Amino acid sequence: MTETSSVATSEGLPLSATDRTRLRRMRENGRSGRADLNAVLAAGFLCHLGVSVDGVPMVVPTVYGADADTLYLHGSVASRSLVASPEATVCVTVTHVDGLVLARSVFEHSVNYRCAMIYGVPRVVTDPEEKLEGLRLLTEQAAPGQWDYARRPNRKELAATTLLALALDEASVKISAGPPDDGEGPDAALGLWAGELPLLTGWGSPVPDPALPAGIPVPEHIAARRTT
Amino acid sequence: MTETSSVATSEGLPLSATDRTRLRRMRENGRSGRADLNAVLAAGFLCHLGVSVDGVPMVVPTVYGADADTLYLHGSVASRSLVASPEATVCVTVTHVDGLVLARSVFEHSVNYRCAMIYGVPRVVTDPEEKLEGLRLLTEQAAPGQWDYARRPNRKELAATTLLALALDEASVKISAGPPDDGEGPDAALGLWAGELPLLTGWGSPVPDPALPAGIPVPEHIAARRTT
Repeated sequence: MTETSSVATSEGLPLSATDRTRLRRMRENGRSGRADLNAVLAAGFLCHLGVSVDGVPMVVPTVYGADADTLYLHGSVASRSLVASPEATVCVTVTHVDGLVLARSVFEHSVNYRCAMIYGVPRVVTDPEEKLEGLRLLTEQAAPGQWDYARRPNRKELAATTLLALALDEASVKISAGPPDDGEGPDAALGLWAGELPLLTGWGSPVPDPALPAGIPVPEHIAARRTT
Repeated sequence: MTETSSVATSEGLPLSATDRTRLRRMRENGRSGRADLNAVLAAGFLCHLGVSVDGVPMVVPTVYGADADTLYLHGSVASRSLVASPEATVCVTVTHVDGLVLARSVFEHSVNYRCAMIYGVPRVVTDPEEKLEGLRLLTEQAAPGQWDYARRPNRKELAATTLLALALDEASVKISAGPPDDGEGPDAALGLWAGELPLLTGWGSPVPDPALPAGIPVPEHIAARRTT
């Protein structure tokens, strides 16, 4: 079962995402597309940012944060290409793999996943207030509670950080879930097991910095994340 | 601690990958770079493929497999752009997130990860024998044992599958691991907890297809993957 928000549904092949020609403006697509996008963004903190460098795509992993309208990205690497081509469109992709779809035939094997693709011309954030807020969103996305717990960036550190802002205007979400598709066809008679193998992710036990003095407890907002 | 194979080391910012100008041909860099690349590829099955579509980067998740020299990709989406620009270079990025680096200062927060970036001009695989072998590698990468267990692709299915081959010639590997960097500086006196929060991934319990008749056991090669 493959579902696509705010784009035409594409079927059948593992992890084929939508191409840009079928994208729609999110704002024209009402709540459901926007809610799907928000859910995919909320479920992670890492994206793959695609920029064009001398006409060649470069795909780099980076961390993000988001508010209702804007995606903020740590843009250290991309910033050089953005300076070279300030009006260039980038593509940001966030993917969560939920499991393998193990079918009776190899051809029907696929991956269950949730994926958001966002296109836009990013802007380097220069306003100190927006930069601080963007870094807060980015920090809280990956490590909720750390913005209030850790020492916040000072002026020098702010200046040394490249933050990119991308409007959440042009995006698509694609979700693939459910069992294999060959439970009804001729391959069902093969007598083979078929189903899903879930991929689980979770947080382990915090590992203290070896330089940490004795007696400093793991704060509750970190300890509480442990899922295993 | 950030380590980069076959590229100059870049420090300090979360998940900043190398840019292409610092890449070296893997083959000129001896065993250690190649071993690092193989290890990162072996640890996953999903990559983000960056292609240029009308000059705009498109980043799509897709599955891969590899032998010693070649990366094979499921290329359904990218194939259109490749037909339009058959000599275009693509970028394939494989990223594993190992955990969060929770420092005393927000500025020193980062992500521990392993990342491989591969550049090249992909080729659409047309030889049936190579296509079958590429699909075997791709299937076994995600679901070891399924190539021998499930029904293999027939001629029609093979023709309906787009497989891309990319030489493992030009690549870089970047590995970031270890505790935060601010254990020795002035922030160490803040008395804050600091350390790593590991991100764990594993396979859950197989979920049988609802269409599966009773009495078909989960094969051992699937059941044995369970890690939780």
